[in-house]
Amino acid sequence: MDLNSDLGEGFGPWAMGDDAAMLGIVTSANIACGGHASDPDTMFATLRMAAEKGVCIGAHPGYADRLGFGRRVIPMEPAEIARMVAAQVGALQGVAALAGAKVAYVKAHGALANLAADRREVADAIAGAVKALPGGLAILAISGTELEAAGRAADLPTFSEIFADRAYLPNGRLVPRSRPDAMILGAKAAADRLIDFLDSGRMPVIGGDPIPLAAQSICVHGDSPEAVAMAAEIRARLTAAGVKLAPFRA
Amino acid sequence: MDLNSDLGEGFGPWAMGDDAAMLGIVTSANIACGGHASDPDTMFATLRMAAEKGVCIGAHPGYADRLGFGRRVIPMEPAEIARMVAAQVGALQGVAALAGAKVAYVKAHGALANLAADRREVADAIAGAVKALPGGLAILAISGTELEAAGRAADLPTFSEIFADRAYLPNGRLVPRSRPDAMILGAKAAADRLIDFLDSGRMPVIGGDPIPLAAQSICVHGDSPEAVAMAAEIRARLTAAGVKLAPFRA
Amino acid sequence: MDLNSDLGEGFGPWAMGDDAAMLGIVTSANIACGGHASDPDTMFATLRMAAEKGVCIGAHPGYADRLGFGRRVIPMEPAEIARMVAAQVGALQGVAALAGAKVAYVKAHGALANLAADRREVADAIAGAVKALPGGLAILAISGTELEAAGRAADLPTFSEIFADRAYLPNGRLVPRSRPDAMILGAKAAADRLIDFLDSGRMPVIGGDPIPLAAQSICVHGDSPEAVAMAAEIRARLTAAGVKLAPFRA
Amino acid sequence: MDLNSDLGEGFGPWAMGDDAAMLGIVTSANIACGGHASDPDTMFATLRMAAEKGVCIGAHPGYADRLGFGRRVIPMEPAEIARMVAAQVGALQGVAALAGAKVAYVKAHGALANLAADRREVADAIAGAVKALPGGLAILAISGTELEAAGRAADLPTFSEIFADRAYLPNGRLVPRSRPDAMILGAKAAADRLIDFLDSGRMPVIGGDPIPLAAQSICVHGDSPEAVAMAAEIRARLTAAGVKLAPFRA
Repeated sequence: MDLNSDLGEGFGPWAMGDDAAMLGIVTSANIACGGHASDPDTMFATLRMAAEKGVCIGAHPGYADRLGFGRRVIPMEPAEIARMVAAQVGALQGVAALAGAKVAYVKAHGALANLAADRREVADAIAGAVKALPGGLAILAISGTELEAAGRAADLPTFSEIFADRAYLPNGRLVPRSRPDAMILGAKAAADRLIDFLDSGRMPVIGGDPIPLAAQSICVHGDSPEAVAMAAEIRARLTAAGVKLAPFRA
Repeated sequence: MDLNSDLGEGFGPWAMGDDAAMLGIVTSANIACGGHASDPDTMFATLRMAAEKGVCIGAHPGYADRLGFGRRVIPMEPAEIARMVAAQVGALQGVAALAGAKVAYVKAHGALANLAADRREVADAIAGAVKALPGGLAILAISGTELEAAGRAADLPTFSEIFADRAYLPNGRLVPRSRPDAMILGAKAAADRLIDFLDSGRMPVIGGDPIPLAAQSICVHGDSPEAVAMAAEIRARLTAAGVKLAPFRA
Repeated sequence: MDLNSDLGEGFGPWAMGDDAAMLGIVTSANIACGGHASDPDTMFATLRMAAEKGVCIGAHPGYADRLGFGRRVIPMEPAEIARMVAAQVGALQGVAALAGAKVAYVKAHGALANLAADRREVADAIAGAVKALPGGLAILAISGTELEAAGRAADLPTFSEIFADRAYLPNGRLVPRSRPDAMILGAKAAADRLIDFLDSGRMPVIGGDPIPLAAQSICVHGDSPEAVAMAAEIRARLTAAGVKLAPFRA
Repeated sequence: MDLNSDLGEGFGPWAMGDDAAMLGIVTSANIACGGHASDPDTMFATLRMAAEKGVCIGAHPGYADRLGFGRRVIPMEPAEIARMVAAQVGALQGVAALAGAKVAYVKAHGALANLAADRREVADAIAGAVKALPGGLAILAISGTELEAAGRAADLPTFSEIFADRAYLPNGRLVPRSRPDAMILGAKAAADRLIDFLDSGRMPVIGGDPIPLAAQSICVHGDSPEAVAMAAEIRARLTAAGVKLAPFRA
C-alpha cells in the first residue's frame, strides 16, 4: 500500500504545509506544477527533496487559478483541459530533468479531479494528455471514477486511491466538503477505518452498507501542522498493523 | 541559411502578429512558452501550424512577465533562471507531445537573451537547463555572445543568428532600441545588407568597419502586418539572390 | 440616446481594437479595470483620451480571468463578487484621479454581466459595491435584467442598454453567442433595427412579437477594425435619422 | 509614537503571518493592495479587523510581482510607477469603502520603498500619485529618504518611520539584508535600542557615531510567529518605559 500527499503547493514567498516533514512520511508525492500552485523554484526544491528521500514523484496539475487554489471549476473544453495538463506536466518534467528527478505518474488536483471523476470526456482528455507525454507516466485516480476508467481505456498504467480523512457516499464519491460530515476527524478514527478497509476491502459510507473499493494508495493531507501529525500517526498505525508501505509505482 | 521568427506570442484573447502568414515565410519558429507570452491553447495552435508547414520548432523562453512582454530584466539568480527556463521549455515540450510536434532548439527571448549575451553565468544557466532537458535540444544564440560560447562549452549543438532589421555596433552587439539608428528601415535596405553579408561574411556596423559574424540563421520580426510584408520581401530577395533557405536544425 | 462601447481592453503589449477611433464615435466608454483586461498604463491612456474627447467614463469590471477575457463564469460567492468589483472600480477611480478624469458609472463585463442579469443575489452584490463606493456612481445594466432591478432597489441612478448587433429572445435576453442567429449582421440591418426600436419602443425578437424595452444607451462593439466601421455607420445613420446622441450620464 | 506593521500580505489560500494577532499590537497597519500580495477578500478581511480594533489604516503598494513579493526592482518609468501606485491604492480604497473603513496614508513596500528612498524621480512619482488620490492621504516614509522629502515638497502630510529590528548605516540607510549584521536580533536588544533612540533622538549605526533621525512611527515585522512575539515584547517594553503608543495619523 502507498501513502500519497499533495506537496509543493507553496507559491513564491508563501508556504503551504511542511513539505520536508511530509516527505518523511509518504511514499508518493503529488507535486503541483505551477497551475493552482507552485513555481519553478518551489517545484525544484520539492523534486529534490522527494528524490533524496526516495519518494515516488507524481505531477499534480490543476486549474490555473491560484486565487482559487484549483478548487473552482473554470469552464473549459476537454481539449483545453488536455493542453493545460500537458503544459503543466511538461513544466514539472522539465524542472525534474534539471533536478535529476523523474516524474512517474499524474494525479489531477481539486476541482479538476472532481470533474474528471464524473465526466468521461474530461477524464478522457486528461488520459489523452498523459498518454501523449513521454516518460511512461501512470495515472493515479480516485477509486471508482471515470478518470480511473479512462486511464484503463487508454491503456495507461492506472492506480486508484482512497482518502484517509474523507467520508464516502454509497455511490463511492466523497461527501462534499460543504457538508458537516465530510471529514473523518482524528488520526485514530481515520487509521481504524483504513485498517478495517484494508482487511475487508470495504469502505464504510454514510447512508448505506460498506462498499467495495479498489485502492493501491491512500491520500493523506499535508497542508497544515495538524495534518503532518495526523499523517505520521496514520503511518505508524498502519505499520503497526502490519501494512507494508511502498510506492504504488516502483 | 535559416529564417527564424518569434511566434506564438499571443495570450488568451489577444493576438500578436499574423502567425499563419509568418509560418509560410520562415524556416524556424521560436514559440513562446507561457512566460512572457502564450498559453497552452496558443502553444498548441502554433505548434500544429508549424508542424503542418514543416517549419522547425524552437522554444522561446523569457522572463515570466507578461505585462512587460519579457523586455524588462527581472532580478533573478542564475539558478532561478535555469529553473524558469526548464519549466517553460518543458511546458512547450509537453504541449508539443500532445500536438504531435517536436521541439528542436531553444532561443532566449528579449531581456533574458540580452542578459545572456553579456553575462556568462546567465548564459551558463540557460545552457545547463537546455543540456538537462530531454530531446537533444540545440541552442540558437545571437552571434558572438556569451550564450553562444556557453552552448559550445556545454557541448550542445549551438547555432548563431543575425538580425535582419537591427543595426550593429563595432563590438558585435545590437544598437539598443532606444537609439534612433537602431533599426534598418525597409525591406530593400535589410535585404541588400543581408545579401552583402552572406557574400562577404562581414556585417556593417555603426562607427567602424564591417565585422565578421558567423550565422546559420536570420531573425525576422513577425509582430505586425508590416513585419509580415517585410519578412516576405526579404525571403523573396534572398531566394532571388540564390540563397537556399532551410532550417538550421534538420 | 447614448452610444457606449467596451474600451481599454488591451493588456501590456497586446492591443484590443482601436480605442482612439472608437472614442471619436461613442458618447460613453466602459473602461476595463485590470480584471479581465487592462493594466494601469492602459487605463491611464484610455481615461486620458476619453476625457480629452468629452466621452463619459464608466468602469467595466469583470472576472479577474485574463486568459478567459472575463467570458467564463468563475465560481464566486456574491460577497466575493462585491469585493472584486469594489477593488476593480476603485483601481480605475485611482488611476482616473491621476489622469484628471472622473468615473461616472459602472457596467459589468461578459460572464459577470450575464450572471447578474439572471441572479438577483449577484446583481445585489454588484449594486451594493457600487453604492458603497464614492463618487455618486450610476449603474448601466442590460435592459430588463436583475441588475437593473437591483440598481433601482439600491436607489442608485440606473440606466439601461440595448445591443446594436445582438438578436433578442422573447424574454428580453440576448440570443446566446453559441447560436448561429445570435448576431445582427451588417451596419445597415443593425441601424434599421435601432431606428425602428427608437421609433416604436419595441425590439424585434426571434420566435415572438416585438417586446417593449427601455434603453438610454446602445452598446456597440469596438474590438475589431470592422467593429469601428460598423459603429461609425450606426452613428451616422442614427444622426441622419434625427437621433441626438449624448451621454446618458451628464 | 506609532507602531506600524505590513499586514494583509496573504494571497488566496496562502497566509502570511498572523494578522489578527498583529492588529492587537500595532497602532497602524500597512495593508497590501493586490500588487506584491493580497486580493480583494484578503484586503476586506484585514480592513475589517483593523477598523474593528481601531488600528489606523495605510495602503501598502508595491511592485505587481507576487512571485518576488515586491522585493525585486521591476524596471519601470516613474510615470508607470505613479499609475501602478494610483491603481493599487485606489483598489484598497474601493474595498475599504465596502468594508466601512478609511485609508489614511500610503507606505511603499519593499523594493519600491528602497528605490524611492534614493531616487527622487521615483519618490516624486509616488508623492504625485498620493496627492492626486482623494481622501487626504498622508505619506509614511523611511526616515531621511527622498520619499520623505518628496512628500514634504508635494505639501502632503508626511511622517517618518524607523525599523525596530534593522541595523543602520552612517548615511541613515538600512544595512542591506544580504549582510550578516542587517538584523537586530531579539526583542530585548531591539527594545533597548528603541528606548535609547526615543530618549536621545539618535540611532546607533554600524561604522560611525549615532545619527539623528526623526520618526513618528516604528516599523515592526509581522510575517512569522516569532515576529508576533517580538512585536508584542517591544510594545510591552515601550509601554513600560512610558512611551505612549498611538497612530501617527489620527
